[in-house]
Amino acid sequence: MRVTKSVRRLAAYVPGEQPRSKAAVKLNTNENPYPPSPRCAAALRAFDPALLRRYPDPVFTGLRKELARLNGTAPENVMVGNGSDEILTLAAKAFVEDDERIASLDPSYSLYKTLAAIRGVGWTGVPAECGDVRRFLPRDASLFLWTNPNAPTGALAAPEKIARFARGFRGVVVVDEAYADFASANCIRFATAAGNRNLVVMRTFSKSYSLAGLRVGYCVGPAPLIAALYKVKDSYNVDAVAQAVALAAVKDQKWMKANVAKVVKTRDAFTAELRRRGWDVPPSESNFVFARPPRLKAENVFRKLRERGVYVRYFKGAGTGDRLRVTIGTDAQMKKLLAALEAVGA
Amino acid sequence: MRVTKSVRRLAAYVPGEQPRSKAAVKLNTNENPYPPSPRCAAALRAFDPALLRRYPDPVFTGLRKELARLNGTAPENVMVGNGSDEILTLAAKAFVEDDERIASLDPSYSLYKTLAAIRGVGWTGVPAECGDVRRFLPRDASLFLWTNPNAPTGALAAPEKIARFARGFRGVVVVDEAYADFASANCIRFATAAGNRNLVVMRTFSKSYSLAGLRVGYCVGPAPLIAALYKVKDSYNVDAVAQAVALAAVKDQKWMKANVAKVVKTRDAFTAELRRRGWDVPPSESNFVFARPPRLKAENVFRKLRERGVYVRYFKGAGTGDRLRVTIGTDAQMKKLLAALEAVGA
Repeated sequence: MRVTKSVRRLAAYVPGEQPRSKAAVKLNTNENPYPPSPRCAAALRAFDPALLRRYPDPVFTGLRKELARLNGTAPENVMVGNGSDEILTLAAKAFVEDDERIASLDPSYSLYKTLAAIRGVGWTGVPAECGDVRRFLPRDASLFLWTNPNAPTGALAAPEKIARFARGFRGVVVVDEAYADFASANCIRFATAAGNRNLVVMRTFSKSYSLAGLRVGYCVGPAPLIAALYKVKDSYNVDAVAQAVALAAVKDQKWMKANVAKVVKTRDAFTAELRRRGWDVPPSESNFVFARPPRLKAENVFRKLRERGVYVRYFKGAGTGDRLRVTIGTDAQMKKLLAALEAVGA
Repeated sequence: MRVTKSVRRLAAYVPGEQPRSKAAVKLNTNENPYPPSPRCAAALRAFDPALLRRYPDPVFTGLRKELARLNGTAPENVMVGNGSDEILTLAAKAFVEDDERIASLDPSYSLYKTLAAIRGVGWTGVPAECGDVRRFLPRDASLFLWTNPNAPTGALAAPEKIARFARGFRGVVVVDEAYADFASANCIRFATAAGNRNLVVMRTFSKSYSLAGLRVGYCVGPAPLIAALYKVKDSYNVDAVAQAVALAAVKDQKWMKANVAKVVKTRDAFTAELRRRGWDVPPSESNFVFARPPRLKAENVFRKLRERGVYVRYFKGAGTGDRLRVTIGTDAQMKKLLAALEAVGA
């Protein structure tokens, strides 16, 4: 066998289904239902195709500068990746020795476990709803991936709690804030604080900026940690078009925030309606809800919806198997979902 | 210290300089001097920005199918990466155990050594011009990266020789054919042969297709090895725009081949002119030459050219330090370079 043992054993991460039908109601991968800023469309149109013959800027000078400005920090505190997935992979390389391990909340983004397996190190899940993360943390954990708001629950931990945990942790804490624009609080001020040694905040353009198709994520943190990520990245990891379009998106905060406000309004109305129908829906600070049906099994509801062209996400297993994760779409999409739920008796 | 020991020790790979001045004569990173196919421009213009809110196809169905067709194989034998750099990183994960090592020709693409260091395994360089690669190969090598044509020399090894080596090798051979479209022979037929167990051919859109700015590379090989690469890649590693534009490029073979023919013609004329001036220029089957100046030291020529806004590549060290690697540009660019060489007395 020429494939390594750990890769042979590996169960690949399964991303949410991408149905081809245009009629599908797609509420399974936490995409934004609204298009990106018109400035992104303009940047795409204005991009000179002749420039594609050249390599992109390997250190994303323009984009990094704008992201530093947005977050009140310096360019050397900012790193950009081919999606935040790439930044996670790089963090696993740069911050975890072969005999150390990665930890995260559990349940959380299911990719983390796969990430540890690919890196060839152990993974420990800490009960997401425990009072004190440190109590459950093994001594050899050197990278803690803290999704906040968490997925698939949508629950927000107080930023102060995460910062306190980081101060007492010997390793690096990456706060995965993929959904922070939909939330009422975030950890950026701790990531950019002068005394910060080990807290990195990660953001993505895939959710609030409606640019999942482009693959751009970034992180903000202490310069020595950011420099380590640069050292292990591929030379030209973010393409020239993605850099240009993401830059246009950052510059239109107003558009992003207006879309976020619409999603939040729809989320709150949808939550109220599900609760009225007897579902258990914990408060969400993200662009999805994690809801337990009152009568039917969640997996059956998932299947029956799928048959009707309505896609939500179902995660088998303890702690997740009794619920559905539903991405917040447009009001019209949620109405279709609610009608489909009624039709299947859920 | 929160950064791993191996990353702290790591000397990051230094990509070729990207001068900002538009007046610069840029012959240092083997970019194609001609723009990509007009179909790429059309694909970029036609791309619906509203689609960017959705994740890209994680398995590049359309592009993979077309690449399979082009190379006379099946889609399960094709993998696409965020540049071929990403494929190299994935191969180092999938085909090398922690106690094994990576080998390549020496001199060759200087990234390979960095790649092994990032992966945390050893690296061995085999003299590029030796008769028999196996003689120099350590027993624990499990991945051989064979650049063909080689860089920075431009020399082409006979595909039969590489295939023979692969048949006797216990590990995986990745033939990095970044420059194959400029060459008279390649290894594709061995990669797609029914009995092939361990030979993978890698190609890029960065050179012959003039799409370095996009970051798209691919590889062709035995289905079990390709499947292993899929297992370790990030979920959505190639963005939607890159997939669409690369697909347009593949479909215009005529454009690519016409540009390649122009570059080859310029390369041969430039080689003849340098030789006429007393330079040592070995035959190149790529889009660059690796030439030794007759009088001045190569490093001095490099510096003097740079002062005049003419950028070529210089690699310090034994086996490379007495030469310059010069990318083949347009005839007008080569004329400027030749004039600059005359002006500095080289």
